[in-house]
Amino acid sequence: MQAVQVPEAGGNFEVVEQPIPEPGPGEVRVKVHACGICHSDAFVKDGAMPGIEYPRVPGHEVAGVVDAVGDDVSQWAVGQSVGVGWHGGHCFECEACRAGDFVNCENGQICGISYDGGYAEYMVAPQEAVASMPDGLDYTDAAPLLCAGITTYNALRNGDLQPGDHVAVQGIGGLGHLAVQYARQFGCEVTALSRGTDKEELAYGLGANNYIDTTAHDPAEALQALGGADVILATAPNSKAISELVGGLGRDGQLLVVAATGEPIEVSPLDLIMGRKSVAGWPSGTAADSEDTLDFSALNDVAPMIETYPLSEADAAYDRMINNEARFRVVLVPDHDAPLSA
Amino acid sequence: MQAVQVPEAGGNFEVVEQPIPEPGPGEVRVKVHACGICHSDAFVKDGAMPGIEYPRVPGHEVAGVVDAVGDDVSQWAVGQSVGVGWHGGHCFECEACRAGDFVNCENGQICGISYDGGYAEYMVAPQEAVASMPDGLDYTDAAPLLCAGITTYNALRNGDLQPGDHVAVQGIGGLGHLAVQYARQFGCEVTALSRGTDKEELAYGLGANNYIDTTAHDPAEALQALGGADVILATAPNSKAISELVGGLGRDGQLLVVAATGEPIEVSPLDLIMGRKSVAGWPSGTAADSEDTLDFSALNDVAPMIETYPLSEADAAYDRMINNEARFRVVLVPDHDAPLSA
Repeated sequence: MQAVQVPEAGGNFEVVEQPIPEPGPGEVRVKVHACGICHSDAFVKDGAMPGIEYPRVPGHEVAGVVDAVGDDVSQWAVGQSVGVGWHGGHCFECEACRAGDFVNCENGQICGISYDGGYAEYMVAPQEAVASMPDGLDYTDAAPLLCAGITTYNALRNGDLQPGDHVAVQGIGGLGHLAVQYARQFGCEVTALSRGTDKEELAYGLGANNYIDTTAHDPAEALQALGGADVILATAPNSKAISELVGGLGRDGQLLVVAATGEPIEVSPLDLIMGRKSVAGWPSGTAADSEDTLDFSALNDVAPMIETYPLSEADAAYDRMINNEARFRVVLVPDHDAPLSA
Repeated sequence: MQAVQVPEAGGNFEVVEQPIPEPGPGEVRVKVHACGICHSDAFVKDGAMPGIEYPRVPGHEVAGVVDAVGDDVSQWAVGQSVGVGWHGGHCFECEACRAGDFVNCENGQICGISYDGGYAEYMVAPQEAVASMPDGLDYTDAAPLLCAGITTYNALRNGDLQPGDHVAVQGIGGLGHLAVQYARQFGCEVTALSRGTDKEELAYGLGANNYIDTTAHDPAEALQALGGADVILATAPNSKAISELVGGLGRDGQLLVVAATGEPIEVSPLDLIMGRKSVAGWPSGTAADSEDTLDFSALNDVAPMIETYPLSEADAAYDRMINNEARFRVVLVPDHDAPLSA
């Protein structure tokens, strides 16, 4: 089969031929029909996460069809449409797992990091990392929902919000353009925050009720002029910009951060105490959360804006993503009938 | 009557003679038996809060007896033991009040700041600011519970914790020494964090199960060695020290800040995302919350450690507090039989 691997930390992508992997006990083989490229794939490309073994095939936004199952797998059957996301498996035995908190498993695996992922025609995943796909969803649409989608949907649905609340979405990119749609489909009043006016029309088209150009307006003041936000979902990893958002929260407001940056944000205790506010993070979700994300998206016509590339052009496609040129998610599509060599 | 007033912002306390105030419609007069001195009284002393009218009698930890009621007051009767805390009244008409969120009233009053407080033999408060005292509680013990007590009890009981959870209390002072007792009475495992070892024996005596000397140990590492904290209550207004606590949270852990400082704390989004953590503030509470605080304290033998001074020595008593010499709360006691002049 054709696969795209990173040969070593910091190395360039290589299109290689590999044997189709065999699922072991408790594993499922997926024939990949689409795999999104996520900014977190840079962990593999750049070697920015300790413990990655190379060569490694990245990819944790995988949509496809069950192609084979290993021993002891009764939960999945050949022919089912499924997805695999960032959360790539758990141990069932650690303290978090025993409490049912699989996403915080101390021995958790990450698809495309702990084992080879979806930049390939086929991949193998532990059965607990597999999510069922609803009918009527394209594989190319489903793929980005398995990371960008679940990250925003799962954070928002677990956030301190109710239908009708005022939700602000900071950053209209791969995550934010989905968050605007989700929040709107929760029946919320949605304010999109982005730099400049380039994305204003787009944000309204996605369902935003208000748009704040953060280069022209103080975001906290502008949000307060709209009554204050009940939840602000921060999707763009700019800690200075995120710090400025706390002042835009209303009573009991929650700044919900999914933008994964290690650079600290600053927040004044007094600002949190007055009006009883909070800052919280939310980490993606499990395969069950992925299923809920896919089901909700299909039910309510939430779809990512995507650009598709053949798997063999992963290098160029990745560059679109990493240079922030894509609108908004890049999806690789394997050509299962392509000749593997000239 | 005898009262202690601040003549102007930054002025020294003056012991003065004043007429006993008359309660207007909807108001209650309290014969003061004890009034705690709180660090927030510095707002009045120093003029650090805008809009304070001088001269002003401070004091928002007031315990006493209803002495007279104004027109339209049917809720309170002469002879009842009552308290008045920081939350000194609300408008019932703003958005927050209409939602029942009186503590966030847009027109909220503060006892001893918006009107004369408890550094006096008598004071008058709006009826909605009055809390009933349970039998069996000393006025001098009740007084600090109306600010230091409610602030910690109400934050903890509304925090993300359950009986049996691991609660850490940062700062063993006026607030912290009560928080240790409350958390222990919730059935929690309690870890006290303080600088040095001076307060170690005291903390164990208050019910702490563990003690961390933060000058000798990294507090985050020491808390993780104890399994991580489910809730860390930050009571000491040291933003650098508070920032270092986030790493001590366990899964779903909450850093709950009641230390009222405007100096920002720093927190990394990644630290919040991994393990689904949060930072939140909690603002004191209403008179109903004060009643719950007093009831809980009486039921479970939670009491402040206090030093008492006659009202006429407010100046020296305040100095004990502001210089951090008191163990732990200073309480003024009016002498209702003292001659008003020589």
